Amino acid sequence: MNKKPLILVTNDDGITSGGIRSLIHIAKEFGEVVVVAPDSPQSAKGHAITLDKPLRINEVEIFDGVKAFECSGTPVDCVKLAKHHVLKGRKVDLCVSGINHGSNASINILYSGTMSAAMEASLEGIDAIGFSLLDFSPKADFSQSEPFIRKIIEDQLNGPKGTGTLINVNIPKLSTEEIKGIKVCRQARGRWKENYVDAKDPFGRKYFWLAGDFVNDDTSKETDIWALDNGYISVVPSTFDLTKYDEIDWFKSLEKITV
Amino acid sequence: MNKKPLILVTNDDGITSGGIRSLIHIAKEFGEVVVVAPDSPQSAKGHAITLDKPLRINEVEIFDGVKAFECSGTPVDCVKLAKHHVLKGRKVDLCVSGINHGSNASINILYSGTMSAAMEASLEGIDAIGFSLLDFSPKADFSQSEPFIRKIIEDQLNGPKGTGTLINVNIPKLSTEEIKGIKVCRQARGRWKENYVDAKDPFGRKYFWLAGDFVNDDTSKETDIWALDNGYISVVPSTFDLTKYDEIDWFKSLEKITV
Repeated sequence: MNKKPLILVTNDDGITSGGIRSLIHIAKEFGEVVVVAPDSPQSAKGHAITLDKPLRINEVEIFDGVKAFECSGTPVDCVKLAKHHVLKGRKVDLCVSGINHGSNASINILYSGTMSAAMEASLEGIDAIGFSLLDFSPKADFSQSEPFIRKIIEDQLNGPKGTGTLINVNIPKLSTEEIKGIKVCRQARGRWKENYVDAKDPFGRKYFWLAGDFVNDDTSKETDIWALDNGYISVVPSTFDLTKYDEIDWFKSLEKITV
Repeated sequence: MNKKPLILVTNDDGITSGGIRSLIHIAKEFGEVVVVAPDSPQSAKGHAITLDKPLRINEVEIFDGVKAFECSGTPVDCVKLAKHHVLKGRKVDLCVSGINHGSNASINILYSGTMSAAMEASLEGIDAIGFSLLDFSPKADFSQSEPFIRKIIEDQLNGPKGTGTLINVNIPKLSTEEIKGIKVCRQARGRWKENYVDAKDPFGRKYFWLAGDFVNDDTSKETDIWALDNGYISVVPSTFDLTKYDEIDWFKSLEKITV
């Protein structure tokens, strides 16, 4: 097959963030790149979609030689509008989302717009990868992780296509030389311990502003958090099938209910 | 144990919707009920949380004899604020979310604020149930499903507690007598086919408004969609662990990457 692969790029930090620019730079080496990304930061939007208002989508010329659109919706809205409006049914070979500014390891996958966008592509049968760098700074240095990202994208494009595989890639904040390699692992069972800022607005009315600390008691070496803590890039194969299969038999007792 | 169970009730349709009123009515029979629900409709917000602005939470007296709070955030925000602010660390025995106006079967679990709220409780180790009735109408008749909901809640409260089990319960739009019973099943592999309304605003600018049709090619009798299509209530044990375990070995080849 000589045809250049079609690669859809999106993110949740917004189309002007540093992370998406870095990802586009790499994706361009492999095929035709189309960008559809939020026009404003959409972190922690999870799998939200916009039903209660119209969406805007506009072409922008901010990436040299790359067709790009900014969209007023969530990351998942971007993927849906990309498919419906921008690409009008063209077959996408790979969707890459990110590079997120900050971790999407462990339970963060649930809250993450970056991963939800990739998941939306996956459930449409498009192979998808979410990339995140463990550096929240808007000035994060994505160049150190680029050699690994390049090879992961290459590997996916050379693999079986169109099966809707989804991987969650998190990269430690280290130099290329310091990164020990890649670990394929499971999602650690961590969670956020909330610590709301509780204050008053200029009118004397109480408000709460969400903050918190990530806590993880899941110290297994099979987890993404272990990999990251030990200098590895974590790769977690992920799914949109939320069935807990090992509990189906246990809950079968509910079938005995009569009213 | 003589102590009355503590039951947290939330939803995504908003605190004034009919579905939550019906659920509170049932939950009151089993224990102390505390309601923390959105002050406006929050359908399809998925697992979104609010980071970019403060949240408000206010006590309201709209349910006879039940402590209730309306919150300006998403359904997941409601669960977090319930835990942190309203209940201040008290042990919750069960979280029930809904009754949702409309289906959360199949892939809808990803978009659903109702199910994301229940999932947030689950990942905190609280047993959680999301209830949905396949009737979008604000005037939906929830009374027909009440006998089943009552028994499912009773069953969960009598089971092992504090393990963070999560079940997604969907109820067909049928009379109590017509409902054939309960099927414990897996999430069907369905998806939404978008069909945006594409029009112009009063200023002549183009907009897109999301609409669509649910499509399901997964006709297995083991699925929630089959159960609902055949007159059964579907119960899908669900999880916040999105790892696709059966792909871990397949992706291990990525560990060979060097740069």
